[in-house]
Amino acid sequence: MDLQAIIDDITAELSPRLGEGNVADYIPELAKIDPKQFGIAITTVDGNTYQAGNAGTAFSVQSISKVFMLTLALGKAGESMWKRVGREPSGSAFNSIVQLEHENGIPRNPFINAGAIVVTDMVLAGHQPREAIGEFLRFIHYLANDDTISIDRRVAKSEQKTGFRNIALANFMRGFDNIKHPVEMVLGTYFHQCALSMNCVQLANAGLFLANRGTNPLTGFSVVSARRARRINALMLTCGHYDGSGEFAYRVGLPGKSGVGGGILAIAPGKASIAVWSPGLNEVGNSKLGSVALEVLAARTGWSVFGP
Amino acid sequence: MDLQAIIDDITAELSPRLGEGNVADYIPELAKIDPKQFGIAITTVDGNTYQAGNAGTAFSVQSISKVFMLTLALGKAGESMWKRVGREPSGSAFNSIVQLEHENGIPRNPFINAGAIVVTDMVLAGHQPREAIGEFLRFIHYLANDDTISIDRRVAKSEQKTGFRNIALANFMRGFDNIKHPVEMVLGTYFHQCALSMNCVQLANAGLFLANRGTNPLTGFSVVSARRARRINALMLTCGHYDGSGEFAYRVGLPGKSGVGGGILAIAPGKASIAVWSPGLNEVGNSKLGSVALEVLAARTGWSVFGP
Amino acid sequence: MDLQAIIDDITAELSPRLGEGNVADYIPELAKIDPKQFGIAITTVDGNTYQAGNAGTAFSVQSISKVFMLTLALGKAGESMWKRVGREPSGSAFNSIVQLEHENGIPRNPFINAGAIVVTDMVLAGHQPREAIGEFLRFIHYLANDDTISIDRRVAKSEQKTGFRNIALANFMRGFDNIKHPVEMVLGTYFHQCALSMNCVQLANAGLFLANRGTNPLTGFSVVSARRARRINALMLTCGHYDGSGEFAYRVGLPGKSGVGGGILAIAPGKASIAVWSPGLNEVGNSKLGSVALEVLAARTGWSVFGP
Amino acid sequence: MDLQAIIDDITAELSPRLGEGNVADYIPELAKIDPKQFGIAITTVDGNTYQAGNAGTAFSVQSISKVFMLTLALGKAGESMWKRVGREPSGSAFNSIVQLEHENGIPRNPFINAGAIVVTDMVLAGHQPREAIGEFLRFIHYLANDDTISIDRRVAKSEQKTGFRNIALANFMRGFDNIKHPVEMVLGTYFHQCALSMNCVQLANAGLFLANRGTNPLTGFSVVSARRARRINALMLTCGHYDGSGEFAYRVGLPGKSGVGGGILAIAPGKASIAVWSPGLNEVGNSKLGSVALEVLAARTGWSVFGP
Repeated sequence: MDLQAIIDDITAELSPRLGEGNVADYIPELAKIDPKQFGIAITTVDGNTYQAGNAGTAFSVQSISKVFMLTLALGKAGESMWKRVGREPSGSAFNSIVQLEHENGIPRNPFINAGAIVVTDMVLAGHQPREAIGEFLRFIHYLANDDTISIDRRVAKSEQKTGFRNIALANFMRGFDNIKHPVEMVLGTYFHQCALSMNCVQLANAGLFLANRGTNPLTGFSVVSARRARRINALMLTCGHYDGSGEFAYRVGLPGKSGVGGGILAIAPGKASIAVWSPGLNEVGNSKLGSVALEVLAARTGWSVFGP
Repeated sequence: MDLQAIIDDITAELSPRLGEGNVADYIPELAKIDPKQFGIAITTVDGNTYQAGNAGTAFSVQSISKVFMLTLALGKAGESMWKRVGREPSGSAFNSIVQLEHENGIPRNPFINAGAIVVTDMVLAGHQPREAIGEFLRFIHYLANDDTISIDRRVAKSEQKTGFRNIALANFMRGFDNIKHPVEMVLGTYFHQCALSMNCVQLANAGLFLANRGTNPLTGFSVVSARRARRINALMLTCGHYDGSGEFAYRVGLPGKSGVGGGILAIAPGKASIAVWSPGLNEVGNSKLGSVALEVLAARTGWSVFGP
Repeated sequence: MDLQAIIDDITAELSPRLGEGNVADYIPELAKIDPKQFGIAITTVDGNTYQAGNAGTAFSVQSISKVFMLTLALGKAGESMWKRVGREPSGSAFNSIVQLEHENGIPRNPFINAGAIVVTDMVLAGHQPREAIGEFLRFIHYLANDDTISIDRRVAKSEQKTGFRNIALANFMRGFDNIKHPVEMVLGTYFHQCALSMNCVQLANAGLFLANRGTNPLTGFSVVSARRARRINALMLTCGHYDGSGEFAYRVGLPGKSGVGGGILAIAPGKASIAVWSPGLNEVGNSKLGSVALEVLAARTGWSVFGP
Repeated sequence: MDLQAIIDDITAELSPRLGEGNVADYIPELAKIDPKQFGIAITTVDGNTYQAGNAGTAFSVQSISKVFMLTLALGKAGESMWKRVGREPSGSAFNSIVQLEHENGIPRNPFINAGAIVVTDMVLAGHQPREAIGEFLRFIHYLANDDTISIDRRVAKSEQKTGFRNIALANFMRGFDNIKHPVEMVLGTYFHQCALSMNCVQLANAGLFLANRGTNPLTGFSVVSARRARRINALMLTCGHYDGSGEFAYRVGLPGKSGVGGGILAIAPGKASIAVWSPGLNEVGNSKLGSVALEVLAARTGWSVFGP
């Protein structure tokens, strides 16, 4: 199987469609991005990297960072964290508050905004936002084995200005005592992790431990146990694409996590970690061309977890 | 890997816990079942069958039949069927009507009751219930290569008496014109398919095509394309356990479909089809010991789709 | 105050607007009505009757009959009836099912469909629909002192054919054991009471007991106690116009009950009973010109219960 | 009719029940109040005042202030204010956020928290909170003709500390652009108006304009037009007691507004303004003994708006 040829083909096939979908406009900094971009990178468990298109261009990973924040929180709080956040698909939009009211301030899963805010609260653990953000960034450097990855402070600031819904979610949960730190501290940290800036190659590298029993095969760094890697993959598959998770599983068949910056991290367990990026989003907020690319890739490689 | 030893161990380990959970009591015939039973059967794609406990005892498969009905409907209506039913997890109980009101009578997926009723309406396709039930039963015989499988008419009748919620769901959708036949015809057919009676061995055989690219390796019968088999598996993983689907994916990591009769059909793509049965249900309506058995089985075999 | 002049003026002022709004089209028989009609009748507690426009034309009272059915049920079951139906505005559409799921099958008030179906179930009280419908019609004859009032069986039949939502509501509540008779019996009775056919004069007469301490001053017939009359008026004011009840109270300031046939019964306590009719409905399902007429009437007479 | 005798009797009858219900505990300062208190005051349109029990003890009026804030906002923005807040009963708890999500950030009415926050935003109108609070307090002094009425800053501060739900509501609506000023400014103002401290006599005086065609008969001060007074009364009747509004209309039959401090302002149009206070609340958050007192008062005076 010639992976380079496959992703070159995909990139070529998608080039006439560049610009499809809508760039997220509620975060002012993201609205400025040129929509006609597409990048893809694959890192395999045997240590090879393949890339095509704008795979070297950094973009705002946004909600994809929730996967790494969850990994960090599981390391700190262990399975007891599930008292404060659920593990079920939400059946509603990424920023819905309805479910919180009906379920006493316990978010449905760590990949919707409310859940990720609770996870951030856990990672804070009494520290200052600056320290928590530093710890998070060091963790990303460790995962990707790349100290140049940074947080885009303009994007973080841009979110803080307009993130009224997230402020509402956090205060609402604080009213249920499911947020323990002052809301400004939690959201300050949350907005910074969302503003993590990575390119496709870095992102594929950072996620590779999930494809390889919890250990990054490039560095030998052990991140989590094999069982925990499987469980994070399971959460990505059932909850990783908001109210489009079922659709993604149906079409692509890989655990994945999308961000409104247009990126998607997908895991082929035992085989590879894949990052795609294209800024235009579909109607449920996932990268439109990114989803198409992964559907074709899964079909051509036979990597779907649901069968050859 | 000695599969027989693994399932014998599991059966022995669970024997002190027989009777845990609650038998579904809203269907009178099911309430009469002895809860202290447990059976498991595995059929592998290379043609071997393993069984333990009460694997030869027939039970009411209930919602597991939704997998087969969906397969039948996809054969008739193709992908156009997705105009009338969604592919997303529901985020609510198996018999909720709230979502239908908010989403114009389109059920979220084919594995909640409302969705399965729409699927049944598609399979009816202008025929009489008697014919549709006959077609469905022949399809099961074909899948399992076993003509002795039957529908328990007492159970079907028992459901009809108390199924007020299902009558409500069907009429509600008919008000949105998403049910095309008279409600009595649709529900008559629906209650009969739910009353399908199979033992674990028969059920594992019937599901084997989903583990083997759409073809039953025991008979060579082709049921669906490899792609469609993957897609049905994806739906089972994201939606197969009602509002416990995320939990099942997290703990077990296999596509699966449960029924309130206490059965679960699980698929290890490329490897095997597994049927477990134990009548006591957990709080979201899935077999309690059946779920535990599958969690242990997946751990010991390394069959989780989310990684070794 | 010259009431005849007031209603003649209103009728003249509204004549250029005849036909505004939309005639209910989901009940086929109602969809056939000429929308360019308007009638009004007032009966005062001192025994005078005033009428204008099409006040002598019979129309389908539809949900206005819920007031009379409630009066009948209160006479049978007394205040204990409130265990099975609430007394709060619903905050949702007249045929919503969402609230029922969240509140265990107890409808919010007797004037939304679900609540009126429960009230009908109470009035049935073990009798056959034919008897209950007979009793209801005799009660109307007694209230209006007019034996010519009848039920339009074509309308009743027309509703039965398309009333899927009502069948859903009734079965849903039966699943919560809040409907005691077979659903067909309850709905058969329910659809017949909705199909009650009256003209404005008859309707104003029938409601007059509510304006006069529970006794019809024209006949001297005592219907309910003064306290019960006040309470029924209170329910009409808070819940009588579905999700437009607040608006009606704000603009008109009288207890009232509307029906999708285009009629409204309004009560000026201590003064008069008023019936208006015009088939075109506003966006929440209440007679558009009827509401306007009552707003003007209340302003000119000073009859608002909220102050001179 | 001897009003003094009536309220003396009511006060005596209720004395064995003092302490029933639960004092609001989510505002720390309110939780400290001695629950065994009861006061009542009536001011009639002909200028007499009657009082009994703890009618001279100041208490936190809380949501009752929403009536005065609405009056102020109507004076500034006129009927155009209804683009930003509805006029329908909510069918849910006083602090629910669910409805806001389903209805694009437009609160159902000005008497639930979300609605009152929007009203406060209108009153701010570009000014600083200090100025808006000053204007509000001067308005209260004018209404009650009493310059000694003040805001309890400890209560205001106490709310600010724990009002996470209100912060959530405000930010949520700001996300829909239905709050125009910074949330801290709006809530700072909002919490201060809630912390208004009055005794029953002052409160009855302040509300008297609503019983007298918009003009305070004691001072001759004109506050609003007769039509606007009726409309505010209508809103109080349909929406003044959260999800207990229907119940209050059914039992008492007067426009009223309750606060979690245990106060209720009730209006008998054309007759009197009544203030009651007793800190223990019923299950929907309205003064338990206060509601009972008003029910008895309405029965004995015949003041129900729904008939003699």
